[in-house]
Amino acid sequence: MKELLYEGKAKQVYKSDNDDCLIIKYKNTATAFNGVKKVDFEGKGKLNCTISNMIFRSLEKKGIPTHLVESIDDITILVKKVDIVPLEVIVRNIAAGSFVARYGAEEGMVFDEPIVEFSYKQDSLNDPLINNFHIVALKLATKEDLQIITDYALQINEYLKEIFLKGNMKLVDFKIEFGKTKDGTIILADEISPDSCRLWDVNTNQKLDKDVFRKGIGDLITTYEEVLGRMIND
Amino acid sequence: MKELLYEGKAKQVYKSDNDDCLIIKYKNTATAFNGVKKVDFEGKGKLNCTISNMIFRSLEKKGIPTHLVESIDDITILVKKVDIVPLEVIVRNIAAGSFVARYGAEEGMVFDEPIVEFSYKQDSLNDPLINNFHIVALKLATKEDLQIITDYALQINEYLKEIFLKGNMKLVDFKIEFGKTKDGTIILADEISPDSCRLWDVNTNQKLDKDVFRKGIGDLITTYEEVLGRMIND
Repeated sequence: MKELLYEGKAKQVYKSDNDDCLIIKYKNTATAFNGVKKVDFEGKGKLNCTISNMIFRSLEKKGIPTHLVESIDDITILVKKVDIVPLEVIVRNIAAGSFVARYGAEEGMVFDEPIVEFSYKQDSLNDPLINNFHIVALKLATKEDLQIITDYALQINEYLKEIFLKGNMKLVDFKIEFGKTKDGTIILADEISPDSCRLWDVNTNQKLDKDVFRKGIGDLITTYEEVLGRMIND
Repeated sequence: MKELLYEGKAKQVYKSDNDDCLIIKYKNTATAFNGVKKVDFEGKGKLNCTISNMIFRSLEKKGIPTHLVESIDDITILVKKVDIVPLEVIVRNIAAGSFVARYGAEEGMVFDEPIVEFSYKQDSLNDPLINNFHIVALKLATKEDLQIITDYALQINEYLKEIFLKGNMKLVDFKIEFGKTKDGTIILADEISPDSCRLWDVNTNQKLDKDVFRKGIGDLITTYEEVLGRMIND
């Protein structure tokens, strides 16, 4: 393995032989509450890597450009090198998580239209909510970038809802990140997995995502295996 | 005086003889940190009422519709009855206050373009920041309302910058509120005063607003009298 460039909470990023690419390795670590809760789960990296690759390939087929170049092994992928836009892009279909805490809404409230929101990726500030005016003023992205990102986010939401619904899962909300390639193209980066999506069983509303770990209400590995199983067998 | 309908932190609202109007009385109370700091200042109500009326009349002349009907006495005004849109509309020209705390920006950073942001008026939730998607999802206002409010907010910012600059004051940021009349027209409500604006002396950056109270760095009445004096003698 080449030089380690960066180690995040759930992934490591290495140099690759190709200067336009990077190697990403999924870790087994699960974290919550900005890293305050942290546990290793044997097999988590492989599950998230597998699920995310399936989704990214499916999105590519629909015309969404992503950073995924190829799968190297169970937990390792080759990706296009990008400058990450320092925003967490969150799309919500149903009220849950920080939305419920912030606005006093009832968990489970279904929105007439999907919500797109941005958080400023800055652990030291606790990833604060940020609006388009703030983002432009702080020069984190341009107005044009934000329009492209918002359009992609809403398209991705439609495709993901479809993908998960085939496995009898409701897509409550999810977090994605975008990056800019050397030539300035905005593409989908990071991952899409039960770490970054809230998924509820269509019939029972059973939680099938990282909330089982956040809330201590179920086994993470069993849950993520269930998600993968439903996606394969749809 | 007719029936008291509502008592806020800085104002009382009474019924009036005209069903389409209300009477507002300015109080002498200053509060900060969501009411945690609270002091009465003899003469504050009169200062804010005088300053706000001057500004609202000036904005009316520029074509901004406001709730102000007429002045009744030093601390009392007759206003059009509205349903308040439950948003604090904040416009920022220079980084200060919660912007600095939230995004780790340096106080005094001048923005290329003004920022418009919304907070959900809900004391129990600490008036959280909210974006347009959230506002529409929670049915606090429609997309069309938000467009009108944003356009007014940016126009008001230009007029206020002019008004205060004549008194050698920089408009750092301000908070306004809007209401809807019976016929659905959106008009400017609440007040515009050193309680709701950050004003800095153009040459010295001396704070000429409620921050002298929030931060305990000056006498509130002397400061508000200074603002009024500069506005009259410009």
